[in-house]
Formats: sequence, structure tokens, C-alpha cells
Amino acid sequence: MKRETVAGTAMLVTALLVAAVSERLHAEDDAALLKQAQALFKPLPQTMGTPDFPTTPARVALGRMLFFDPRWTLEGNVSCATCHQPALYGTDALAKSIGVQHRTHPRNAPTVLNAGLSFVQHWWGDRKNLEDQVEQALIGVFSSGHPDPAAVTARIEAIEGYASPFRQAFADEAKPITSVNIGKAIGAYERTLLTPSPFDAYLRGDTRALSPMARSGLQRFITRGCASCHDGTGIGGQMFQKFGVVEEYWKATGSPEIDKGRFGFTKDPADLYVFKVPSLRNAAMTPPYFHDGSVATLDEAVKVMGRVQLGRTLPDAEIGEIVAFLGALTGTLPASFVSAPTLPSAAVKRGW
Amino acid sequence: MKRETVAGTAMLVTALLVAAVSERLHAEDDAALLKQAQALFKPLPQTMGTPDFPTTPARVALGRMLFFDPRWTLEGNVSCATCHQPALYGTDALAKSIGVQHRTHPRNAPTVLNAGLSFVQHWWGDRKNLEDQVEQALIGVFSSGHPDPAAVTARIEAIEGYASPFRQAFADEAKPITSVNIGKAIGAYERTLLTPSPFDAYLRGDTRALSPMARSGLQRFITRGCASCHDGTGIGGQMFQKFGVVEEYWKATGSPEIDKGRFGFTKDPADLYVFKVPSLRNAAMTPPYFHDGSVATLDEAVKVMGRVQLGRTLPDAEIGEIVAFLGALTGTLPASFVSAPTLPSAAVKRGW
Repeated sequence: MKRETVAGTAMLVTALLVAAVSERLHAEDDAALLKQAQALFKPLPQTMGTPDFPTTPARVALGRMLFFDPRWTLEGNVSCATCHQPALYGTDALAKSIGVQHRTHPRNAPTVLNAGLSFVQHWWGDRKNLEDQVEQALIGVFSSGHPDPAAVTARIEAIEGYASPFRQAFADEAKPITSVNIGKAIGAYERTLLTPSPFDAYLRGDTRALSPMARSGLQRFITRGCASCHDGTGIGGQMFQKFGVVEEYWKATGSPEIDKGRFGFTKDPADLYVFKVPSLRNAAMTPPYFHDGSVATLDEAVKVMGRVQLGRTLPDAEIGEIVAFLGALTGTLPASFVSAPTLPSAAVKRGW
Repeated sequence: MKRETVAGTAMLVTALLVAAVSERLHAEDDAALLKQAQALFKPLPQTMGTPDFPTTPARVALGRMLFFDPRWTLEGNVSCATCHQPALYGTDALAKSIGVQHRTHPRNAPTVLNAGLSFVQHWWGDRKNLEDQVEQALIGVFSSGHPDPAAVTARIEAIEGYASPFRQAFADEAKPITSVNIGKAIGAYERTLLTPSPFDAYLRGDTRALSPMARSGLQRFITRGCASCHDGTGIGGQMFQKFGVVEEYWKATGSPEIDKGRFGFTKDPADLYVFKVPSLRNAAMTPPYFHDGSVATLDEAVKVMGRVQLGRTLPDAEIGEIVAFLGALTGTLPASFVSAPTLPSAAVKRGW
């Protein structure tokens, strides 16, 4: 054996040893990261139904019809699916939705996907749950435009094909077409809209479900402190927080108007600029960002968060990693959301 | 054998003979009716593509995305699917659609389903084909709201995820994002939207595909003269005709405004109150009826046609039969229409 061959072999052995050790270290890091992640986040449940708000097949089917039906809103041209479009991951890609009678909604429309995971609804948290959100939307000036719930139920009663699905969904009620039941039905449908993602597979133990870059992003997401608010099953949606801890948010977002946040609802000075922390599930598919849709890209949104919440200028490489992690929160759309139901045939009558 | 048994047997034999003869007569009637129908109508083809307007998979996939995408219209809130909703059989159930900037369309939105079967597009026939319709809609004041096609292509170019599908659909073009190609892509998608119905099975020889009542309705439809205009593959959509042959149409429809029909386009007095004869496929699922959506139910629409086109008061029983026949024109929705594509992620930016 020549000297150079021996030297070559020694180098190769050393290289292999280094690689093996480094791989073991990586594996240890991976295991530690997974453990950290499992302590902070939870994978999706099978359903978002509860004993009070069960996702019975009849309610879900009815709720799906009502969700896609524009005929019961004031002018018959706006449905839940107008602002929560299947093609756009349950959003409309607008900063602020254009609703009934061309009225602009006051805040950005969040996706309906996984919305039932949030502890309250709406950016201000002024809707208790999905059912409350729907019930208030029935008479919302932007969403439906009707002056009272009776105007909505009259519309639905006029579509004969709704009689049977309402009877099936609320079998023990003599007069099932009520605003409470519309809330329960659409709520039940929305409580089925879960989107399992690579991150859920990861949390269940499949570390390879995240790319190395996404795993680095997850590590950053935890160590930088993002996960102290964006945690739990929703990766957010579990608490209220002030937007703009170290700097006024609008200086970073370029918001054209200043939204005072939950203060607008409670009038409590402690709630000034306080918003519900949004779930980050499907964030990559649901631009624009923040309560006013003032930021168009996810990179920019992460940068803004670093600046106004953490007081840091996050390096571009780090932003890229965090965005890669957020991409792993993009889930599979439910078939019952991607496809529209066939609605009972009836025209929107003039003079209704 | 007792007398009464003999008599009973004779009666039974007679009854059976009568039934057999009557069945043979029915069978002969059925065969004759089928023959008549086959001479007047044609079952759906496999595709509505043509050598000039091929339905290549890449074009269809791109067209489907553009069809469901609201982001390229003026305010980013109106897509083709706004007025042509999957849940409502390709319509919006409104008398007249509410389009961009809350502008009301001048005429009722027909379904996009099977639209490629019609010899021209729009009630006035002022669109040559589907591709022409789309191209003009790109700068339509109601449908898109943009002043010129460049505004549309700029919007689409701003969504990075469209670059690749356009390149695939128009592989030999250096700059494929053009209004002509948008027309070709959406047109190609629409040319796949066929809805096979029980009547198509009937025309292929399966007489049992229509109920006895629907067959009676078909017979009426032919003998009353409906089929002289509503014929061919589309059961209509093959010619222009004056609406209101024996009586001014608005006296029967209660139309709030008088639409002068194709005259508005050609300025030829011969075109006064002349409209494209609409296809009746899926009529039962696409109320309201006529160019202005002035009639809410199919029963009433058939009655109006009897009155203003034929000068007859059709008996209710006959209307019921004709409506049963029209119900057999309700087809199966294509999966690519019922379900929405996932659009490339990008926000509608303010100030676009």
C-alpha cells in the first residue's frame, strides 16, 4: 500500500466519522426540536365539533348549502363564500372585503379554515364562537345587510328546497328555520373545515415531514419568541395581544388608517391596539396580512413582526427560514370546501 | 269449471290482451316519438372544442384558474364564477347580475354550462363565440371594469404563479400573457363544461330515461311548436327570433323595462325585440327566465311562451308535462366546475 493511499484512506475514514457524528448530533437536535415543538404546539384534532355544537352530517350538509348560497343576503349577490373562497384558501385576497351593496368591511377577512380552533372570532374578538359570528353576520351591515333576522329566514323559507334539509338537521323542532339554527348549521359546517399539514405529521413524530430549512425556521420561530403567542393547535388564535409592542404598528405596516383594536369593542384603554393573535395555519396561502391586510407578502409580514413585536431587524436568511416553516402549515383542503354543493333551484325574486 | 270462473278467466284474458295491445301501441308511440325527437335534437358531443379552439389540458387548466380568480378584475372582487356559480348551475339566480363596482348588468346572466353549443353568445348575439365573449368581458364595464386589456394582463403578470401555466398553455409564444390567450384559455375551459342529461340517454335510444310524463311533455314540446326554435344539440341556441310574436312580451313577463333586443346592437328595425333563442339545457336549475330575468318560475316561463309566441293559453296539465320534459334536460355537473382550483397565492395589492 502506497503512503498516499494510506493517507487517502485515513482521510476518508475521518470524513465518514465526522459525518456520522454530525448526523447523530443532527438526529439529537431533531429529537430535541421535536420535543420542544410538541410541548408548544398540538396537531389538528379529528373535528372541531363540541357537545354543544355537534357536527352532525345533516347540520354540516345544510350549513354547507347556506355557506355557498348568496340568495339570502340583502341583494342576493353575496354569500359566505364571496369573502371565503375555496380557490383562495378561504379568503378573498383583498386587504378588506367588499360586501353587500359594495360596502367595505372594516377589517381583513380571515380564512374560515380551522377557524373553530380560535378561542374567539374576529380580529377584535367580539364574536364568541363560529355560531355567534354567523348569527351576527346575518344582520351584519357589511356581510348580509338585512335589518333583522326575520328578513333572512323569510328569504330562506321562500326557497322550498330548504324545508327538508332544515327538518333533517333540527328534527325535534316544529319551526326549524331560525337564525339560531342557521348559526348552528353554518357553524357545524365550518367546524369540519380542518386542513392537515406537514407540520401535523411532524408533530406526530415524522421529523422528515419538514424540510431542513423548515426545521431551522421552526427553531427560529421558537427561539425568537414567535411561539410564545402563536402556539397551540392553531399556531395562534389562543389569546389577545397588543400589535406593536416596541413600536407603533402602522409605522411598519404602512396602514392607511389606525385601527384601535379591541379598544373599539371594550373601550378599555388596556385594549388599545390589542387584537386576537391570528392562527398561522395556511398563512402562506392567505395574503394579505394583519387586521387591515396592509402587508402583501409573508416575508414582509415576518419582518414587520420582528420589528414591532420583538424590536429586531431579522436577517433575510432567518426570515426565509421562518417563511419555510410557515409554508409547512399549508394544509390539504377538505373536499367539502373545494367543491360547491348544488343548491335548491329558485330565483332571487325582484322586490324581495 | 264453474260459470263464474270461466267468465272470470275470460275477463282476465281480455284484460291481458287489452294491456298487451295497449303496451304495443305505447311502444309504437314511444318509437315514433323517439324517431321524431332524434330528427329534431342531438345528444351532447364529447367536447365543444374545435380545431381553432382546442381544449388542450394545459389551456383548460389555465382557463379554469382564470375563471375562478377574482383578482384580475378592477377591484379584485368579481370573477367569472361570481355570476356563473357552480352551486347555482352556472348562474347567480339574479334577474340581472351585480358586477364590478356594484354595477348592474343589462341582461340576465345565462349559464356557462354547454354555452359553447350556441351559435353566438349573449342575448343580443353580439359576441361571436366564447373566446370573443371573454375578450370583451376583460374590458367590460360590468364584468371586469378595466379600461384596457393591458390593465388585465398587468394584474395577471403580478401573480407569479401564473407564469408557468401560461407558458405551458401557449408553449410557442414568447410573451403568452395576452388578452387573446386569456380568451382562448377561459374559452377552452368553458368548452369542456358539458352536462349529460337523461334526455341525452333518451336520444341515444334509452326511452325509459324519460318518465312517461316527460315523454308526454316532449310530445307537446314538439307538436306545440316549441321545438321549431328550441332544437339541435342545445335545445335552442341555434338562431335569433323575435320575443313576442303575437303579443308584446313585456305584457306577459311584467318586465320593468323594455329591452329592444338585437336592435340595440344592429340598429336594424328587423331586429326589434329579437334575441338569441336560449338553450333550454338545465333550464329547471337556472331561474329566473328570459333576457331580463323577469319571470321567476319555469311553469310561468312556459305559460308566457305559449301566450306571446304561440298565442295560446296552455292548459296547466300541459305546462306540467312540458316542465317535466324540461326537467329531463338537467344534466350532471362536470367535476372541474363543481370544484374550485387552488389559485396561486398572492394578495390583491392596494393601489394596483
